[in-house]
Amino acid sequence: MSPVPLHQRIRGEIEDRIRSGDWPPGHRVPFETELMAQYGCARMTVSKAMAALVEAGLIVRRKRAGSFVARPRVHAPVLNIPDIQSAILARGETYAFRLLSRQTRSAARGHADERELAAGGKLLALDGVHDAGGRPFALERRLISLKIAPEAATADFSTLPPGAWLLDHVAWTEAESRISAINADPDVAALLDLDEGAACLVVDRRTWRAGEHVTRVRQVFPGEAYDLVARFGPGA
Amino acid sequence: MSPVPLHQRIRGEIEDRIRSGDWPPGHRVPFETELMAQYGCARMTVSKAMAALVEAGLIVRRKRAGSFVARPRVHAPVLNIPDIQSAILARGETYAFRLLSRQTRSAARGHADERELAAGGKLLALDGVHDAGGRPFALERRLISLKIAPEAATADFSTLPPGAWLLDHVAWTEAESRISAINADPDVAALLDLDEGAACLVVDRRTWRAGEHVTRVRQVFPGEAYDLVARFGPGA
Repeated sequence: MSPVPLHQRIRGEIEDRIRSGDWPPGHRVPFETELMAQYGCARMTVSKAMAALVEAGLIVRRKRAGSFVARPRVHAPVLNIPDIQSAILARGETYAFRLLSRQTRSAARGHADERELAAGGKLLALDGVHDAGGRPFALERRLISLKIAPEAATADFSTLPPGAWLLDHVAWTEAESRISAINADPDVAALLDLDEGAACLVVDRRTWRAGEHVTRVRQVFPGEAYDLVARFGPGA
Repeated sequence: MSPVPLHQRIRGEIEDRIRSGDWPPGHRVPFETELMAQYGCARMTVSKAMAALVEAGLIVRRKRAGSFVARPRVHAPVLNIPDIQSAILARGETYAFRLLSRQTRSAARGHADERELAAGGKLLALDGVHDAGGRPFALERRLISLKIAPEAATADFSTLPPGAWLLDHVAWTEAESRISAINADPDVAALLDLDEGAACLVVDRRTWRAGEHVTRVRQVFPGEAYDLVARFGPGA
């Protein structure tokens, strides 16, 4: 008998298949019942192995569909306005932006933030999804001040990500990001193809040009796909 | 009849009670069935009002217990090593640190990060919970290099938060934070008094002194209680 407990052996063999690329990201891991039959062991043994792999970030569970080899997370710097398209393409994945809705409207009544952004003009409201490798990667809800960026009114955002367009067209001088964690509600879960309640990382960012408010955006990322990194010293 | 839809009226009346302080943070909001009876309306009307209040961050739901007036979130700067104790006291809430476990050990085999931190010496592993206002606010799992901070071996961390002790005893020169979102597993949920699966914001931080690795810590915050803020310019 090997001195290695069976759950560690199962874990090790699955890990080897993932690290070797034999099971690529997105590959479905056998169901627990299949592993129980394969190794001739109890469910608890298999569950222990799987829990360790989830903990290590190597596999992700989806309620309805089973367990899958995780994609490596995208690590984005906190102190930047990330170009999601470039980050996805740099990973060797295909990128697409899908516009869900587009509306030109006034600031909502009683909504001080929107009034400040509109500055007496109209707002362009754009909702869309960033896809990576054919799967949803981020949900974006954005408002653009048409007073500061009037050219946005005629830009075609049906497949062009508004963030990339803004970086090209409006020089920004200051930004503020607020980072939080939420459980996906039914709408977010459907749009990001997640289980309802899945943890998501949310970035709410406001951007200014020389004191003028240009845009605000809420981006929602699946927690399993994205994290933010900051390196700093005591003087930061 | 008022032209305001009933769900907006219900929402407005609850919002008024919260904003006036009539219902303070932690106050239990009446159950949906109570509101249905009070307003003589269908569950859908009440649900719509409550969903809007959750969305606005004014109330939080707990599966077993009902809905409660939310505490304002703590906003912490990304680019700093936050002193959790000071942040809590600044809100006017009581603060306490509860040590859950303390262990002096070697780096785990095959764990390159721990080996780098230990640098041939021992590690002090400390797990604990930060309480705010008598309720869990953050779960902390920390490793300290006893080679770099040998005085930690004799410090009494039973009620002293190790982060505050380190800030006083070891000057740091560089830090890296990684921010992610997770669903609370059963252990985390129990320690933070959350529903299993609740979204949590996770900060994994490593700290160095002049190139020597001092400590690494994972802090887990209830998503409803904490967010991180960064303000920056294009040169950041």
